Amino acid sequence: MEKKVLIVYAHQSAGSFSAAAKEAAVEVLKSKDCSVEVSDLYAMKFKATATAEDITGEVKNSEHFRYAEETKLAWDEGRLSADITEEQRKLQEADLIIFQFPMYWFTVPAILKGWFDRVLTLGFAYTKEKRYSNGIFKKTKALLSFTTGSQETMFSPTGINGDMNVTLWPLQNGILHYCGFQVLAPQIFWAPADAAPEDRSAMLAAWNTRLQGLLDEKPLFYAPMDCFDCEKSFQLKPESVEKCVKEFGLTAGTHCGKPLPPNNQMKAGV
Amino acid sequence: MEKKVLIVYAHQSAGSFSAAAKEAAVEVLKSKDCSVEVSDLYAMKFKATATAEDITGEVKNSEHFRYAEETKLAWDEGRLSADITEEQRKLQEADLIIFQFPMYWFTVPAILKGWFDRVLTLGFAYTKEKRYSNGIFKKTKALLSFTTGSQETMFSPTGINGDMNVTLWPLQNGILHYCGFQVLAPQIFWAPADAAPEDRSAMLAAWNTRLQGLLDEKPLFYAPMDCFDCEKSFQLKPESVEKCVKEFGLTAGTHCGKPLPPNNQMKAGV
Repeated sequence: MEKKVLIVYAHQSAGSFSAAAKEAAVEVLKSKDCSVEVSDLYAMKFKATATAEDITGEVKNSEHFRYAEETKLAWDEGRLSADITEEQRKLQEADLIIFQFPMYWFTVPAILKGWFDRVLTLGFAYTKEKRYSNGIFKKTKALLSFTTGSQETMFSPTGINGDMNVTLWPLQNGILHYCGFQVLAPQIFWAPADAAPEDRSAMLAAWNTRLQGLLDEKPLFYAPMDCFDCEKSFQLKPESVEKCVKEFGLTAGTHCGKPLPPNNQMKAGV
Repeated sequence: MEKKVLIVYAHQSAGSFSAAAKEAAVEVLKSKDCSVEVSDLYAMKFKATATAEDITGEVKNSEHFRYAEETKLAWDEGRLSADITEEQRKLQEADLIIFQFPMYWFTVPAILKGWFDRVLTLGFAYTKEKRYSNGIFKKTKALLSFTTGSQETMFSPTGINGDMNVTLWPLQNGILHYCGFQVLAPQIFWAPADAAPEDRSAMLAAWNTRLQGLLDEKPLFYAPMDCFDCEKSFQLKPESVEKCVKEFGLTAGTHCGKPLPPNNQMKAGV
């Protein structure tokens, strides 16, 4: 069956390396008979800030406006703003979502953070019951594809920027896996701005090759919900600690006080 | 001498717990003879997205727009937009900056990410030479003060959200310490929305008490630049690894493959 891909793209310039990486994804995936939609956030002038204007009509409590609760209610009643609803439609139809961006300050640029804040609303993207391995998007794959300003060595466990697995944890576990997405290994383009033209070409060629098999890739590992005490503490059950340490493997976040497993946010099956 | 404090505040509602925490900081710090400025980002309708409009006049390369390089040039020539320049003035004058926000998706809301992306420009806030312990703002203290939606247990090393030290690393090391700021221990208000009124009051009372001595607090530890090979890899020098493991202590990011030290992003002197 035809697969649907959504690319959420956040770069200001069509001449950028990020644009080239996005174009490569569009081309290869279309050649694999996928239908591909692109949300070009800067071109769309996508609104980044979470405000009461995201709700059509009256808010429930304007004195004490709470974004999650108000957007939950608006979603229930079909009163979210049109730009949010349109992104939610794209997301709901997708089998795979690729986020293509330049890393700004160790995370996504504000315009993409705004996409997460505004599109992944309570009710639509998660509930208290439906999150992590029970998450709403557990049938959907998601992948971060990004450029860095720093060299790879700076992001090692002995590097000054610290282990890239640590930097990726809040994004990959806290946003993507939280909503249930199967998180594919990130595609990291290390400092393309400082690279020689032939090295930039080689990076794009490797991405091209990876794209051929992307839809068949296995996702990163996260301990399933039933390993955690989901009644109260959401901590690993005592019997699961041992299991996670030995059998499943730890993660950068749920590390149980042990050394972080190398590359657990970078490669599947480690 | 009178101290200057800047509070960068990101909540939509004056009735929120975040607003109360911000008000407490204004009151206590004024009573300690500090002058306090507040950047109320939603009230200011602060622009979150990094675009060519942040530069007055022509950009250098509109075909291949690169935000860091273009804003560096604009900063050199006094052509950054007025809203950025005004925030840079406030930041430059401050002895202490408090960021007050509700955690959205394991990090700051997009509007505050936009403040980081747009205000902390190349040249003004960092250069290749001036960062981390050699950073431009090394005489300034900075602190994240935020509310969470999740309970504290969920953010433990055995919790489903993962160790809060991991979640804080990209923000505290990657943004604040990168610019040289002395990072004070974060003020975390755990799930105030789910707390009983008396517990919320107790959280604010504890913050009030902490504020009394805030300006005299010692910052968190980060290995100084001269421990790293700053010519090339920006990795810990071989002789510094041992020193960091034993003497200084590791961090959540530069963990050298050892277990993460507990609370190194949460408490000073651990």
